[in-house]
Amino acid sequence: MEERQISKAVIKRLPRYYRYLGEILDSGMERISSGELSSRMKVTASQIRQDLNHFGGFGQQGYGYNVKYLHDEIGKILGIDQSHNMVVIGGGNMGQALSKYASFEKNGFKIKGIFDVNPDLIGKKIGNIQIYPTSDLREFVKREKIEIAVLTLPKSAASEMADILVSCGIKAIWNFAHTDLNVPKDVVVENVHLFDSLLRLSYNLSSYEKE
Amino acid sequence: MEERQISKAVIKRLPRYYRYLGEILDSGMERISSGELSSRMKVTASQIRQDLNHFGGFGQQGYGYNVKYLHDEIGKILGIDQSHNMVVIGGGNMGQALSKYASFEKNGFKIKGIFDVNPDLIGKKIGNIQIYPTSDLREFVKREKIEIAVLTLPKSAASEMADILVSCGIKAIWNFAHTDLNVPKDVVVENVHLFDSLLRLSYNLSSYEKE
Repeated sequence: MEERQISKAVIKRLPRYYRYLGEILDSGMERISSGELSSRMKVTASQIRQDLNHFGGFGQQGYGYNVKYLHDEIGKILGIDQSHNMVVIGGGNMGQALSKYASFEKNGFKIKGIFDVNPDLIGKKIGNIQIYPTSDLREFVKREKIEIAVLTLPKSAASEMADILVSCGIKAIWNFAHTDLNVPKDVVVENVHLFDSLLRLSYNLSSYEKE
Repeated sequence: MEERQISKAVIKRLPRYYRYLGEILDSGMERISSGELSSRMKVTASQIRQDLNHFGGFGQQGYGYNVKYLHDEIGKILGIDQSHNMVVIGGGNMGQALSKYASFEKNGFKIKGIFDVNPDLIGKKIGNIQIYPTSDLREFVKREKIEIAVLTLPKSAASEMADILVSCGIKAIWNFAHTDLNVPKDVVVENVHLFDSLLRLSYNLSSYEKE
């Protein structure tokens, strides 16, 4: 694997390959040509060949790609073969919704606890997952070997909490707060800025309407 | 305005400018230089000048940008000055969480109804928003002048529902389903593929750990 030379653009596309290959696998197809994958994914076949070549010769001339093999290999590259322990910070609407996503757990992403400062929420369970007081976070992260924190606080509280998470040894933050976080270089952040996304939709909608 | 010549990359960045300018406005600053905006946003100052030049001369040499003016102008470009009526398709966890986001309504994005096929949900209210049977959708979209549908169904049901939405005259779909949609060219789709996002985080986490 030459993962470190892989560009960010390719990495951004990998989960989408994984998703399409999963769908193709579910439909019972065992192999697929880059041409067919291209027409499904609306990406050029040469782009597909170029992207997948980064990960070694998964394709064979005249045969195409072995769907299951390619799906598994990309899954490994994405870290799906290992399990990842997570906490959700914030027991509000979004925190609860994410805690109920069964597909995360099925793929090795296990939410071990939800943390909140609200006394009305502490002690409750969302599905099987308990809500703990934020004061228990540090010890919990250590004991439960938590790697990923899902941050669903309002932006006013998000930056301070990010500092706490870093000080607890968290190395990855999935950030749903409506603000960017300042974290050290060895902590990875993936943003889900929902309102930014809605504004892109709104922009595209209004630019169509003007045409 | 020369909106149609603006590249997709610039459009992708606009909501982030809008967000930062909103934060700066809230902090009470009236003007900001491209240099200072640059250091906050971690984008080069020349990138900022180039991006904002697309929208006319908002900046003045030696003065910088008028924060409120720039914020308002970008808001207009993004369609925030108009109100947009929305429906949420799917009254499950994510549909309910999104329906409770007060900040959408505050910015002109009004969720008028939630639609589901589950008889246990129909008739209930999430906050002030009622859950209606999917069979009422067509008439509701027309009567309430709905522009945007927020699709929060499982992927197995998403494609069929997208076809229905298009046939009802919906022109914009905010897609939370774990699949891509095939829609006509005049319908805009903005995807929030949460699991893809989690996989990017997982990839970046594991590539750090290997270093």
